[in-house]
Amino acid sequence: MSRKKNDPILVPELIAKKRDGNAMSEGEIRSLIDGFMDGAVTDYQMSAFAMAVFFQGMSFDETVAMTLAMRDSGQVVDLGGLSAPKVDKHSTGGVGDNVSICLAPIVAACGVVVPMMSGRGLGHTGGTLDKLEAIPGFRVDLSVAQFRQQLRKVGCALIGQTGDLAPADKRLYALRDVTGTVESIPLITSSILSKKLAEGIDALVLDVKVGRGAFMKTEGEARELARSLVRVGRLAGKRVSALLTDMNAPIGYTIGNALETIEALEVLHGSGPEDLRELTFALGAEMLRAAGVAKTEAQARRLLGHAVADGTALRKMQEIVGAQGGDPSVVEEPSRLKLARHRHTVRAPEDGYVTGVDPLELGYAALGLGAGRLRAEDAVDPGAGIRLHVRVGDRARAGEPLATLYSSKRALLEAGVRRTESALRLGKRRLKPRNRLIDAIRR
Amino acid sequence: MSRKKNDPILVPELIAKKRDGNAMSEGEIRSLIDGFMDGAVTDYQMSAFAMAVFFQGMSFDETVAMTLAMRDSGQVVDLGGLSAPKVDKHSTGGVGDNVSICLAPIVAACGVVVPMMSGRGLGHTGGTLDKLEAIPGFRVDLSVAQFRQQLRKVGCALIGQTGDLAPADKRLYALRDVTGTVESIPLITSSILSKKLAEGIDALVLDVKVGRGAFMKTEGEARELARSLVRVGRLAGKRVSALLTDMNAPIGYTIGNALETIEALEVLHGSGPEDLRELTFALGAEMLRAAGVAKTEAQARRLLGHAVADGTALRKMQEIVGAQGGDPSVVEEPSRLKLARHRHTVRAPEDGYVTGVDPLELGYAALGLGAGRLRAEDAVDPGAGIRLHVRVGDRARAGEPLATLYSSKRALLEAGVRRTESALRLGKRRLKPRNRLIDAIRR
Repeated sequence: MSRKKNDPILVPELIAKKRDGNAMSEGEIRSLIDGFMDGAVTDYQMSAFAMAVFFQGMSFDETVAMTLAMRDSGQVVDLGGLSAPKVDKHSTGGVGDNVSICLAPIVAACGVVVPMMSGRGLGHTGGTLDKLEAIPGFRVDLSVAQFRQQLRKVGCALIGQTGDLAPADKRLYALRDVTGTVESIPLITSSILSKKLAEGIDALVLDVKVGRGAFMKTEGEARELARSLVRVGRLAGKRVSALLTDMNAPIGYTIGNALETIEALEVLHGSGPEDLRELTFALGAEMLRAAGVAKTEAQARRLLGHAVADGTALRKMQEIVGAQGGDPSVVEEPSRLKLARHRHTVRAPEDGYVTGVDPLELGYAALGLGAGRLRAEDAVDPGAGIRLHVRVGDRARAGEPLATLYSSKRALLEAGVRRTESALRLGKRRLKPRNRLIDAIRR
Repeated sequence: MSRKKNDPILVPELIAKKRDGNAMSEGEIRSLIDGFMDGAVTDYQMSAFAMAVFFQGMSFDETVAMTLAMRDSGQVVDLGGLSAPKVDKHSTGGVGDNVSICLAPIVAACGVVVPMMSGRGLGHTGGTLDKLEAIPGFRVDLSVAQFRQQLRKVGCALIGQTGDLAPADKRLYALRDVTGTVESIPLITSSILSKKLAEGIDALVLDVKVGRGAFMKTEGEARELARSLVRVGRLAGKRVSALLTDMNAPIGYTIGNALETIEALEVLHGSGPEDLRELTFALGAEMLRAAGVAKTEAQARRLLGHAVADGTALRKMQEIVGAQGGDPSVVEEPSRLKLARHRHTVRAPEDGYVTGVDPLELGYAALGLGAGRLRAEDAVDPGAGIRLHVRVGDRARAGEPLATLYSSKRALLEAGVRRTESALRLGKRRLKPRNRLIDAIRR
């Protein structure tokens, strides 16, 4: 189906076809992506095409073709040598989202291979790689050969995406970011799936977040994205399902790299925040079922519970950290992770119930404290961030601590305090905290 | 209203604003165009913006802002030193459209200054500059100073567009051409008007063509474009009106550079094809009224008729040709213009009435004979083209000549003959030729 060398692509005609709402063939989409990589399709043509897709959308078949063409633009990792089922999880991004760090070892402890490639934080959202690097010595830049070897030996690796995977997506995403063409369901779908399909997985579980701290603000949009991801992933031959989860408050009680890693490690010790555990077990159960290791939700949850209770998940994490050059004693004793020196506590100005914990404001507050980056080349402060002492529904008396802020630069605290104060709302009525899990989309 | 130096433009936000159907301010549009010229707005952002405009359109106010910002991207000719009214005509492009060559001297002979900047042919449409250059020695590349001087002395100059006029439009048009964003009424409007407003005119008459040989295929589209041009031009402070004219057959009997120039010069001699005279007088009357030289259509037509009948229009053309380095004797004796050596006559295969003379096919046929160019850098064969011997409604007997083809390369004739044969349709019913003039749009 792909374009022969030196075949001219009539790029303006392809763009006009999509612009006018006509269906593009698999070959036409592949020509476009191949041309984008070899220079026959320019950046300005690709951005015009992306805007046409924004308005006209893409059918599932077109989105599959786009996904596979972008997957094939680079290396596709072959994990065929591993007999166990290989399952990854991907989150569309939220605040305080440290699920991967406890989820991966728990699921791996249940006999599933977890080849997890994660990203770095950008803007108000954090990144798993930055959180893992809070562990002294931990290396995320494994080669594909090392990745494959660790999966064989340990059953799980937590690494960064190599530049060789889906480079067409990388280039297209950079364009979309500056041309107002990010918010398109088919483009988001093919962007996420092209990278994940290049990892060599058999199945994928998606955590599609919805709410103020998420990319998708309404349940309708999030549901549409989840359906698109599941449908396109399945048409591309993978077992894909999605959980719709709430992102109107940060996950757990922490935002920041070391802070969130500590919290995730606590889950492996059988403790940790209730909502983080809930989310981890819901996603883990979905992964075990996708892997065929469990038949029912209840059976999956029992397996996951055992892996935590008998310490196999904790030992799996020690193996992973050890294999990737990190200090495994941190897993045993999470409080060894250093937090930033300068601190400030935000206190309740009056008696009341916590009625709002704004994830977007808190994400930006943590970013301002040094926990995140505004540009891809910025460095992060691993010990910076925010620890919340309350969540929605909690009662707070005047003067009681609501949050503690951490930064290595004292001068950064003041702005963080103001943002944190505006993010925490007190009121007269006691609200119930929302359930994280909204729905599961399986077809 | 324009952007201050070093003010950051949030380009993705501007694109998203248009994408989401929100009105952009004059300052925002100017920032975008200024940024496009100084590098703050990239080609891929501009093409995404153009695609967003394709879908969301632009209000008249936005189109005015876009037009003025593009006009101001380069030199704006100041013709304030000339006291007479300055009026130009612009055609949206057709086949065999040689109107400018007779129209400009006739109108100038009536006391109106005609600062006419024309283009070259590209694709199936011809260009006035190529037609004028069929006159030996005729130069179209006058500097702005020479242009101004000739207007003062002769009252008319027929030149090419200098690169300094509306360079933003030039760059944007090149992008639109390869990104499927040509067919947008506000973008076409601002492209045409930005260049014309930079000429220093007081008024403009537009010839908006509709039909198979035109850019706009349906009367509805053409009418919308005409209304947009008139409305936006008036909001920009100029007296602008438009004639909607039929382009379902070539104008006159000729297609090709020398052939069309001869035919236009014949109009100055008081002869020439009926439809070319009709169109020239209709547009000329519109120009005289816009200039304030005539109050009514009838008065304007009388003035134009006199200028032809008493030879002042012919002498005006001799002055123009002389001033621009051309051989003025050609004006007196048009048959001096050389036609290409190799010729072939297409004859009626059977008795019948001419029911169709396809301008698009004939435009391409003439292009194939050497009369036009496929790329901007190609050279044209001034003597190549097609002379029709019939028009719609004429009776043809088997074996009678329908068209004569001219080319300097014998090998090009064969393909031209096939295309010409397929362009000329004979039938049993006698159709009336269509009127050229469909409607006048004045507000």
